[in-house]
Amino acid sequence: VTEPIAVLSGGVGAARFLAGLIDAVDDPTSVTAIVNVGDDCTMHGLSISPDLDTITYTLAGAIDGERGWGLVDESWRAMGALERYERVRPGDSRAAARWFGLGDQDLATHFYRTARLDEGAALTTVTDEIRRAWDVPVAIVPATDDPWSTIVDTEEHGEISFQDYFVRLRHDVAVRGVRFEGSPVLGADARAALTGADVIVIAPSNPLVSIGPIIALPGVESLLATRRDATVAVSPIVGGAALKGPADRMMTELGHESSVVGVASLYAPFASALVIDPVDAEHAPEIEALGMRAIVTPSVMSSPDVARSLAEATIDAMTRH
Amino acid sequence: VTEPIAVLSGGVGAARFLAGLIDAVDDPTSVTAIVNVGDDCTMHGLSISPDLDTITYTLAGAIDGERGWGLVDESWRAMGALERYERVRPGDSRAAARWFGLGDQDLATHFYRTARLDEGAALTTVTDEIRRAWDVPVAIVPATDDPWSTIVDTEEHGEISFQDYFVRLRHDVAVRGVRFEGSPVLGADARAALTGADVIVIAPSNPLVSIGPIIALPGVESLLATRRDATVAVSPIVGGAALKGPADRMMTELGHESSVVGVASLYAPFASALVIDPVDAEHAPEIEALGMRAIVTPSVMSSPDVARSLAEATIDAMTRH
Repeated sequence: VTEPIAVLSGGVGAARFLAGLIDAVDDPTSVTAIVNVGDDCTMHGLSISPDLDTITYTLAGAIDGERGWGLVDESWRAMGALERYERVRPGDSRAAARWFGLGDQDLATHFYRTARLDEGAALTTVTDEIRRAWDVPVAIVPATDDPWSTIVDTEEHGEISFQDYFVRLRHDVAVRGVRFEGSPVLGADARAALTGADVIVIAPSNPLVSIGPIIALPGVESLLATRRDATVAVSPIVGGAALKGPADRMMTELGHESSVVGVASLYAPFASALVIDPVDAEHAPEIEALGMRAIVTPSVMSSPDVARSLAEATIDAMTRH
Repeated sequence: VTEPIAVLSGGVGAARFLAGLIDAVDDPTSVTAIVNVGDDCTMHGLSISPDLDTITYTLAGAIDGERGWGLVDESWRAMGALERYERVRPGDSRAAARWFGLGDQDLATHFYRTARLDEGAALTTVTDEIRRAWDVPVAIVPATDDPWSTIVDTEEHGEISFQDYFVRLRHDVAVRGVRFEGSPVLGADARAALTGADVIVIAPSNPLVSIGPIIALPGVESLLATRRDATVAVSPIVGGAALKGPADRMMTELGHESSVVGVASLYAPFASALVIDPVDAEHAPEIEALGMRAIVTPSVMSSPDVARSLAEATIDAMTRH
C-alpha cells in the first residue's frame, strides 16, 4: 500500500476505517488522521473533542463498541451525582445537565486536555500527547487549533450548537442550515499531511457536519482541488441510508440527494474517485458523469476484516489505476 | 441560644463546630457560615472551593469522616485514569497531577459550580444552590465572590499556591510568609451576617490561612472591631498543638506563639472572648491580660456531643455574661 496517507476524519465511521487502514498498511506511522473539531464543546468547564477522542480510543482498542463512543468498562458515578443538582438548576442553565455523557474514566482525558490548553499548549500538541498516552501509532491531528464550531439551524429551535442538535435533541429535529463559526487557520500538521500525502482519503463520515467543517476551513477546498488526482472519498451513504447518524436525513433536508450520487456531487470538485458499496453499483455511471471514478467494494464495516479490505481497495484504487 | 449567629469558618474544624451549633440552636436557618475562599483553586479546568465543600458535605452528613474531606462511599475512577497521562506530561505541567484528590461523586459539585460560574453566576449564588441541593439548613456564604488567593512563601520553593503547600507538599515545608492576592470585596451576604449577628464566632480553624484570609478582606477587621463585644473565638490550638493541620508549626514559623496565648494575641483586636480547653486553663490570666475573657470548656471535638457542648458554651458565654 502506498504511503504516506492523509485521512479526513469525522468520528465513528472514520475511526473504523482508520482501524482497517492500520491493518492494511506496512507502516501505520505514515498515516495521518486530520480530524473534525466542529463538534468540540465545553461542558462543566471541560474542553471536549468528541471526534478526536473517538478516533484515539478506537485505534487504542479501548472504545466501547456497542455505544460507538466512550471507553469500555466505563462507570458513570460523576454524571450520576449531578442528579442532585438538577432541582436547584436555575432557568435554562445546563450546569446539571446529564445528557452529554461523560464517563468516569473518559473524564481523565478531558481533565488532561483542559489543563494543557489552559497552560497554553495547542490542541495539536495536546492531541498528540493523548495519542501517545494511548500508544496509537497513527498521527492524529485536529484540522485546526482554533475555535471552529458547527452551528445547526433547526426549524424548531433556530440556531443551536452541534451537541445540542446531535446529543441533547438526538438529531431528531428538522435541519434547515449548517454553518461554521470562527476565524480558523488550517493546522500546520494538517496542511503538511495534505500536501505530502501520496493518497488523501475522505473517510466515510457525515459530509455536511464531519467532513464539511474541515473542507470549509479557509484554503482547504482549493488545496484539495490541487490534489484532486490523489484524493478519494468513501461514501458514508450506502443504499441511500447513512451507515450511522443523521447524514441521510440531513442531506435531503439541505437539498442534496441522499445517495452515493449526492455524495459525489459534494466531493467531485476535489476528489477524483468515490468508493461505493456493491448495492450502489448501478449508480456508477452517474458518478462517472460527475467526473469521478466509481470504485465498487463492500463498504459496510461490519467487521475488522471488511474495514481492512475497504481500506485496501480504497488505497489500491488510487495507486494502481 | 441567642440568634442570629455568624461563624467565620475554615474547613474541617469549622465544619465540626457548625455541626455542633446546628444541634445547639433552635433554628439552624439563623446561622450563617462565612467561609474562607483563599484555598480555592482551579484543577483540570474545574473551580474548586475546598472549605465551602467541606462545610456543605459535613453539615449534610455526607463527609468522609475518616479523611475529613470528600464524600463517603467515594470512588476514584477519574483520578485513576489520569495515570495514563503522567508519562506524556511535559515539563512542570500539572495536567496529569493526581495529588489533588477529586472523587468521582465529588466531581459533580465541581462540574456544577464551574458551569454556573461560567454562566456568570456569583459564587455566593452557586454556593447557596449547592447548599440547597444538599438540604443543609445553615446559610453558607463565601467571604467574597472575588478571586482572593492565599500565597504561601516557603523556604524551599519560594511563593507557592495554598494547595501546592497544603496538599502537594503535605504542608511539610518551612513557611516564612503568607499573603493574599486579589482585589476582593467582602460579600454582601457575609457583610449582612456580620452586621446583623447577635453573636459572631471565629471557628476553631487555622488563624493564619483559614481565618486570616477573611479578616484580611478590606474593611473586615475594622467592621469586626466595632462588633468586638459580640465576637468570640474558639482556639484551634489545644495544649500548644493544632487539632488538625499545620497551624501550630505555622504559628511558630511566622513569629507567633503556638498556644492559646498566641491565638489570643491575633484575635484580641476584634474578639472579646476566647474559648479554650481545660488543658489550657492555666493560660487564662495571660489571655485576660490581652483584654479577652477566657472561656474554659472542652474543645477537642471528638464526638458530636462535645461539638454541641462546645457550641453551646461558646454562644452562652456571649449572651449570659
